[in-house]
Amino acid sequence: MMVAVTHHRLTALTRHTERGRSERAALDALLDAVPVGVLSTVVDGEPWSVPMLVARDGDRVLLHGSTGAGALRHAAAGAPVTLTVFALDGIVVAYNAFHSSANYRSAVLRGRLSLVTGEDATAALGLLTDSILPGRTAEVPATTRREQAATTVLSLAIEDGSWLLKQRTGGSSAPDSGTTEGWTGVVPLRLVAGPPEQDDWNSSEDGLPASVRAVLDDYR
Amino acid sequence: MMVAVTHHRLTALTRHTERGRSERAALDALLDAVPVGVLSTVVDGEPWSVPMLVARDGDRVLLHGSTGAGALRHAAAGAPVTLTVFALDGIVVAYNAFHSSANYRSAVLRGRLSLVTGEDATAALGLLTDSILPGRTAEVPATTRREQAATTVLSLAIEDGSWLLKQRTGGSSAPDSGTTEGWTGVVPLRLVAGPPEQDDWNSSEDGLPASVRAVLDDYR
Repeated sequence: MMVAVTHHRLTALTRHTERGRSERAALDALLDAVPVGVLSTVVDGEPWSVPMLVARDGDRVLLHGSTGAGALRHAAAGAPVTLTVFALDGIVVAYNAFHSSANYRSAVLRGRLSLVTGEDATAALGLLTDSILPGRTAEVPATTRREQAATTVLSLAIEDGSWLLKQRTGGSSAPDSGTTEGWTGVVPLRLVAGPPEQDDWNSSEDGLPASVRAVLDDYR
Repeated sequence: MMVAVTHHRLTALTRHTERGRSERAALDALLDAVPVGVLSTVVDGEPWSVPMLVARDGDRVLLHGSTGAGALRHAAAGAPVTLTVFALDGIVVAYNAFHSSANYRSAVLRGRLSLVTGEDATAALGLLTDSILPGRTAEVPATTRREQAATTVLSLAIEDGSWLLKQRTGGSSAPDSGTTEGWTGVVPLRLVAGPPEQDDWNSSEDGLPASVRAVLDDYR
């Protein structure tokens, strides 16, 4: 595994080109597929990072956290951030260690967070919920004003030139000699849902709600 | 999903206590289970991040990248970094949106990278390969001097007080009223391997090597 995830198939930033549009579509697909990203910022000259749930809403990515979280407040106040998302799609088994690799999709977005407030925050929280549990907001009581006040909602704009997409797909390369010894190829990896586990304290006999069935379908 | 991944069940740093030892064991287990992390540093006052393969080697985490990668060279030169790893273990379906959440394990390590060189680098590269493909180094030709020269190997020390582990496990909380409407619980998620795909150009009839069978076993 000597060829690092860091320098594979770098896709350069492009603007308003066909490739730019297809890259943006790939970015959107990645953001829509990956529920968690890593938010990083700089606090007192030092890097600071935290994994967070992410949800795309058109040309922005939504995040949320506790109102009390310190460094998050720092980032919310306009500090520069990166948001990194990735999916590990497979392990590439090559004829030698150097060419062994991983198939993956990753994106690093840069920018400054904006605070999302008022009705926009209400809608954003609904979207965050539904992004991980499709349709869940329609199944549960509306979020209270108090609950919303306890939550900081943030957004990061997706703008031309503000993000970098990298990916590796496909199998391993044949050796220059053309001869091989043994099996080479790819072991695909994906996130899969196991059987849902009803809470011990919950005696409902209603069965799974539609939102959970949708999750099972997403992670089949 | 209003309760953020960012502030759940924070486990504080502890030293030389029983809890400290069990936390360290949990950190090790997470690092050993998760193949990819996000490395972040500060370049010209701005955050800079990249996903990388990670492998634990005792009290250090190993990373590697292309010798040519610019910001990686910056980080290798002793800039402060964070390394963030996480595993999304499940979706927590609560009786309302605010208490909905995710089960996860995450760790943020801080420190400065050290360059790994010479025979230590050779061993480290073997460990990186074997961490994602158990036993693969014994199945393939030894890495050449030239291949090793093209690769930067870095390590981050795991030290008391240099890392923060967070996790959430278990089901959703019952409402204060004690009454519920409908199903609540957890949808477990895990990374699963699909059927291995042999390279088109490879006509070997040897079948899967032991390293690939081990991966299938890891991601069953």
